[in-house]
Amino acid sequence: MKLQLPKGVRDFPPEEKILRDELISGLTRVFQRYGYNPLETPIFERWEVLSAKFAGGEEILKETFKFADQGKRDLALRYDLTVPFARFVGMNPQVKMPFKRYAIGRVFRDGPIKLGRYREFMQCDADIVGSKSMAADAESIRVTLAGFKELGIPVTVSVNNRKLLEEILLKNGVPKEKLIEAILILDKIKKVKLEEVQKELKEKGIKEDSVNFVVELSTQKNSNQDKIKKIKEYLGGESEGLKEITELFSFLEGVEDVMFDPGLARGLAYYTSTVFEAFGKKTKVTSSLCGGGRYDKMIPELLQSKVEFPAVGLSFGLEPIMDVLKEKKELIKTLVKVYVIPIKNPEQVIPIVEQLRGAGINADMDLNNRSISKNLDYANSYGIPFVLICGQKELESKKVKLKDMKSGEESVLSVEEVVKKLG
Amino acid sequence: MKLQLPKGVRDFPPEEKILRDELISGLTRVFQRYGYNPLETPIFERWEVLSAKFAGGEEILKETFKFADQGKRDLALRYDLTVPFARFVGMNPQVKMPFKRYAIGRVFRDGPIKLGRYREFMQCDADIVGSKSMAADAESIRVTLAGFKELGIPVTVSVNNRKLLEEILLKNGVPKEKLIEAILILDKIKKVKLEEVQKELKEKGIKEDSVNFVVELSTQKNSNQDKIKKIKEYLGGESEGLKEITELFSFLEGVEDVMFDPGLARGLAYYTSTVFEAFGKKTKVTSSLCGGGRYDKMIPELLQSKVEFPAVGLSFGLEPIMDVLKEKKELIKTLVKVYVIPIKNPEQVIPIVEQLRGAGINADMDLNNRSISKNLDYANSYGIPFVLICGQKELESKKVKLKDMKSGEESVLSVEEVVKKLG
Repeated sequence: MKLQLPKGVRDFPPEEKILRDELISGLTRVFQRYGYNPLETPIFERWEVLSAKFAGGEEILKETFKFADQGKRDLALRYDLTVPFARFVGMNPQVKMPFKRYAIGRVFRDGPIKLGRYREFMQCDADIVGSKSMAADAESIRVTLAGFKELGIPVTVSVNNRKLLEEILLKNGVPKEKLIEAILILDKIKKVKLEEVQKELKEKGIKEDSVNFVVELSTQKNSNQDKIKKIKEYLGGESEGLKEITELFSFLEGVEDVMFDPGLARGLAYYTSTVFEAFGKKTKVTSSLCGGGRYDKMIPELLQSKVEFPAVGLSFGLEPIMDVLKEKKELIKTLVKVYVIPIKNPEQVIPIVEQLRGAGINADMDLNNRSISKNLDYANSYGIPFVLICGQKELESKKVKLKDMKSGEESVLSVEEVVKKLG
Repeated sequence: MKLQLPKGVRDFPPEEKILRDELISGLTRVFQRYGYNPLETPIFERWEVLSAKFAGGEEILKETFKFADQGKRDLALRYDLTVPFARFVGMNPQVKMPFKRYAIGRVFRDGPIKLGRYREFMQCDADIVGSKSMAADAESIRVTLAGFKELGIPVTVSVNNRKLLEEILLKNGVPKEKLIEAILILDKIKKVKLEEVQKELKEKGIKEDSVNFVVELSTQKNSNQDKIKKIKEYLGGESEGLKEITELFSFLEGVEDVMFDPGLARGLAYYTSTVFEAFGKKTKVTSSLCGGGRYDKMIPELLQSKVEFPAVGLSFGLEPIMDVLKEKKELIKTLVKVYVIPIKNPEQVIPIVEQLRGAGINADMDLNNRSISKNLDYANSYGIPFVLICGQKELESKKVKLKDMKSGEESVLSVEEVVKKLG
């Protein structure tokens, strides 16, 4: 048997997993500070739930891992965390609204493997269900910014409103039934030129210059208020979209790095109002690091419910964020802070190692009676910052020798002094 | 469509998930203090890996969820974390030994649903590969004890040695080829009477009184050293098992709550030496809360490798531990510490909520412009400990009203004072 992984999935050895866990704890702390609570749903769902109308849609179902249990029930690995969230909300009518939950978990897509695309990947979602107010949208943007602040990643958040975009496109001659199609084509503007977007619009029978106004405004460096003013003039009369985006910005007063981008589309059909995306400022990673928006119709449609479930949420992209973190952080191979080397036998040093651990210090020790030099090589290969050498002489005078593996500096200390130094 | 979960799997709403996360963080901290590093492997593996000889075995394969990807490769959901660990070790010969890893993740068994048995459940494993020394076994027992100490659960750890058990059974007339069978039958002694164990032994053609000596010694209250002495006398000459268990206890000097139990069998075939199990002391939960042991042959056999991979590890049982924790802890429904209620509109209080969050306090606010009484009901239904009422008058004098939802006590404070009180 040749040992191998399934196609498109990865092991995360300690050096990767340590950084991933750091990222996840950072986001978790921020979600909690913003009043979100954790929800965990199963890795697999019933096929009928995942394939329901208004769930992920045809394209995603083609990439869904499907199987059955012994009772021949059709099941599938979840492809996102939003459909299970909607299912949970539908099954738990006792949950008090608004309900704010975060979920961090693996999702699966049986799609083609490309650079940076995997069949198993993590989603970090935070959603609010049960509030129609733009205050909830503003909170989603604030938690996004706070998340990146916690991770030390400078970002800009681009914001738009689907209603507004639709109003502008309608005015520019896009028929109502082709609005979503036009928006999904416009979304490609991040990767291709305006000419190509126009060409595709034309091919689909949509006026090719219908997106020009938003694309042009999108590239201008004007202030948010200035752009709002320009659109107001352009649209003339009443606008639901403008009302919403104005209200949203009123809830974001004083917040830096939020930019109104009238050309922002977002590639998902289910958004109904606010959409936003975060991009890194000082990084080579150009893809969006977090995205979100309001989806007021998705849950009621999925649940075929007459009850309203207005919802707004966001999803941090773990993989591109990992790429950004790797640009500035060196991966560490171990969480061990000190490695204890007994000169004679392990029994002697166990109480010392236990004392360090009891003081909350991540400590490891030689278990294999190796020579000092082999032990130093071992500690070195894992990049363990300190070793503690416990020779007979030192032990007799209740001392140990602490070696800083980076500087090479050695000092003879009591265990208490070691605790103080490393704790 | 009737919304439902797949059979045998569960949602963890916040009140469950908060406690589960607490448990997992506690164990994670302890694993790290003991020098283990995190490893994450995929949810699914190639079928040929999971079904390899010396992996999980026939019984477990019957309960394995199997499926295929678009390329028709046979895959399956992992049924444990040990086989993926062995696969990782085999695929990464550059990893320096000993390698200590912990893994906390979901595993899947498509088996019958019984009370406390699920098709998706968590395993929390910590293993050391690359050390033959009983010092590694002792460390596994120490990390088990430290884990339960961290969780505030008093336990006793029962310890035995498979070699020793085999030596005794051999002496008592069990033929070599029936040793494993006899041990797996003996394992049932935890649930059934000696007579039933003897009956089953007889049915399988094994001398029915062959286990009497260990069962009797198991029920005696003698000291560990006393039991070792008795076995020494019983066996006469040399004993590899006795040598190991004596060495193990020498590495556990001064450790309380570790009990030598010559009748402990453990229900897995692959153990080769030390076996142990932890049981709660002050709980109604009678099943084992953690189990482990040494399995020196499993990895090389699985990898069909001539290289030695001695290994010892343990697995915390998340589900029974949750049951113990629930006996003494009240479930909390939210991590939110303070809920902020604006009297007029949300804009006014956003800076206050942000100030609380910035100070690391989990804070939430009304997003729906509800009345004070509705907001108090909401905060109450989630058990949020404090609410902050921000009336126009208070805001004008830069004050807010903090209400302790348990005592009902109210105090008018500055936001800084609130931060100090709740921080």
